[in-house]
Amino acid sequence: MTPKELALELHRQWAGKIEIISRVPLNNEKDLAMAYTPGVAEPCLAIAKDVSQSYVYTRRHNTIAVITDGTAVLGLGDIGPEAGMPVMEGKAVLFKTFAGIDAIPLCIGTKNSEEIIKTIANISGSFGGINLEDIAAPRCFEIERRLQEMLDIPVFHDDQHGTAVVVAAALLNALKLTGRTLETARIVINGAGAAGSGVALYLFELGAKDIIICDRNGIIQKNDPYVNKTRQELLDKSNIRGVQGTLKDAMVDAQVFIGLSGPNCVTGDMVRSMAMHPIVFPLANPVSEISYEEAKEAGAYIIGTGSSNYPNQVNNALVFPGIFKGALRARARNITFEMMRAASYAIASSIGNNSLSQLHIIPSVLDKTVHDNVAEAVYQASEKRI
Amino acid sequence: MTPKELALELHRQWAGKIEIISRVPLNNEKDLAMAYTPGVAEPCLAIAKDVSQSYVYTRRHNTIAVITDGTAVLGLGDIGPEAGMPVMEGKAVLFKTFAGIDAIPLCIGTKNSEEIIKTIANISGSFGGINLEDIAAPRCFEIERRLQEMLDIPVFHDDQHGTAVVVAAALLNALKLTGRTLETARIVINGAGAAGSGVALYLFELGAKDIIICDRNGIIQKNDPYVNKTRQELLDKSNIRGVQGTLKDAMVDAQVFIGLSGPNCVTGDMVRSMAMHPIVFPLANPVSEISYEEAKEAGAYIIGTGSSNYPNQVNNALVFPGIFKGALRARARNITFEMMRAASYAIASSIGNNSLSQLHIIPSVLDKTVHDNVAEAVYQASEKRI
Repeated sequence: MTPKELALELHRQWAGKIEIISRVPLNNEKDLAMAYTPGVAEPCLAIAKDVSQSYVYTRRHNTIAVITDGTAVLGLGDIGPEAGMPVMEGKAVLFKTFAGIDAIPLCIGTKNSEEIIKTIANISGSFGGINLEDIAAPRCFEIERRLQEMLDIPVFHDDQHGTAVVVAAALLNALKLTGRTLETARIVINGAGAAGSGVALYLFELGAKDIIICDRNGIIQKNDPYVNKTRQELLDKSNIRGVQGTLKDAMVDAQVFIGLSGPNCVTGDMVRSMAMHPIVFPLANPVSEISYEEAKEAGAYIIGTGSSNYPNQVNNALVFPGIFKGALRARARNITFEMMRAASYAIASSIGNNSLSQLHIIPSVLDKTVHDNVAEAVYQASEKRI
Repeated sequence: MTPKELALELHRQWAGKIEIISRVPLNNEKDLAMAYTPGVAEPCLAIAKDVSQSYVYTRRHNTIAVITDGTAVLGLGDIGPEAGMPVMEGKAVLFKTFAGIDAIPLCIGTKNSEEIIKTIANISGSFGGINLEDIAAPRCFEIERRLQEMLDIPVFHDDQHGTAVVVAAALLNALKLTGRTLETARIVINGAGAAGSGVALYLFELGAKDIIICDRNGIIQKNDPYVNKTRQELLDKSNIRGVQGTLKDAMVDAQVFIGLSGPNCVTGDMVRSMAMHPIVFPLANPVSEISYEEAKEAGAYIIGTGSSNYPNQVNNALVFPGIFKGALRARARNITFEMMRAASYAIASSIGNNSLSQLHIIPSVLDKTVHDNVAEAVYQASEKRI
């Protein structure tokens, strides 16, 4: 049985990767009268009087929704809402296993941004936070922004921000190992979708100045037609040296390459054209921009990957469990830049200076301490702490 | 501590009555690669090819939503969506404990019927069924009807139909004990909201002919202004003898009284005015139409109640776990009259003729066999059986 066949067979056997369990006994009439009628009327009335009590008397304090419209699932594209659910259930498993969070997977059967926003806003009172997932760019930018403006619970598009936080964590350690700083590093990002945009904007906020962003048409340029607010922001901040041309041109003398694009768009020669001790993160999944072996052969000094088959997997599962755990604990109204930065540094510093090395710039998601470190750092960095 | 204080304190300690758990191991990279990327891509692709595979590769086959807008929560009225959640969580506990079903509680923050319909339709691909709950009449009628027309999964408004199924079960046994038939029984229903309407329409379908329905203005009459489709249907079918007046007038010589209204609207004298061996179901909650003691003192021959403190609790928790279990197992597209009838008879016959008595016309929800009996009967009665 191939790994793919095994995955399918296991999913069939599992018959769903999560389930609901009861936290209360229901053995006799007395139990029933407490958990259900008539006793249940009391917490209802308490919440009716003060909605914030929903965090005390229901599971809201520990419950988030993981929501997709199925338009950008993994690297598979627009496969439909129901087809996105195995990923949503998988994330729910990770949320529970790594952070104890109850995540409810939901798929939304419309691609209309307004309807998606309304639907999520309408059910938001059931949750302590919203994790948006696998929603195509550029729709994802507006959906997240509008929802965060409307709601007083955190709304977090993981493809943008989870990726950004973990890429930054890996990059901070890689820069340390190569004696560079974020402020002066020459960085190339390939891919200007949800992930590429999220990473670029976040690195700028963290202090990066010299980032060139490429999409399938080459280096994005100031005179590109305006598309949306996020794209405009990328155009405004990127490519301060005014480099023209394709990804190949961008990579000449670059110190950092971050790929959030598609398969096999980077050659060994392009890596060879980079500056000394190049940092190369070909993160596309399941097939990366350049294989680990090719990148290594071409002289990549530090390689971050999107696959668990190689060292330094830059996995956003390092981020979302802890960041929501910290945000829920603080009952934060949103996930701020400060909270994201705290998460990046918590992940980076989970690797002590003694064990930091080219093959170990980022911890494994299976490292039990990292998620608690992230949660604690995010909690401390949040504005509102209950 | 009073029972009310205890209920509140227990809810605080429980910190939510349900939670999500993972059904899959996550101990090493191999586990991760199966449950999450890259393995998870395989079930995604299988579902993209054939949406019905979502019942195979995700938890959809065993998952329903329990949804309220918070407008008619218990007897508390319109207390808001978040305040309805303790009841939704309570139902989720009952669904799991009695039928093994994973029920996800959701509240919807709008009272606009169109928006409620759209919101639920948009997330329906996540579920194998929808249990609507505590939505005020008459809005509840249209919301359910429209959703059931749109969706190919069962949509069941428990306040209407769950109540109807269990009231009928109790009534069938009570009629048997008093040597009457549904077809000839003179029945009075007080209350024309979701529950009263649901019970009346269902009893008509089951064969009842002589039902007088009262609301707070007395006997509803053919010349009442048209309000909605459901109300019109009640007017068309009820009161074949053209009785005029109030509830008091309706009850004279009635053989059955079913109260789905409010506290203390029935007197001992009204019960005394009924036919011999009257069947009296004062089901309003938490305070019923007439107390058990008063009804008994006034000569009620069989009393069904809404409270677990007395015999014969007519509890719709006897219905919804089993009815959804059967429907999910059959992968039914809706819950038909035949399935409801099967559920009523399954509940009624859960009490063998030997143990059927005035004080025992209906089983306890804690009777473990009844829910499986209901599920099996509903499964057998469903049109589509996978």
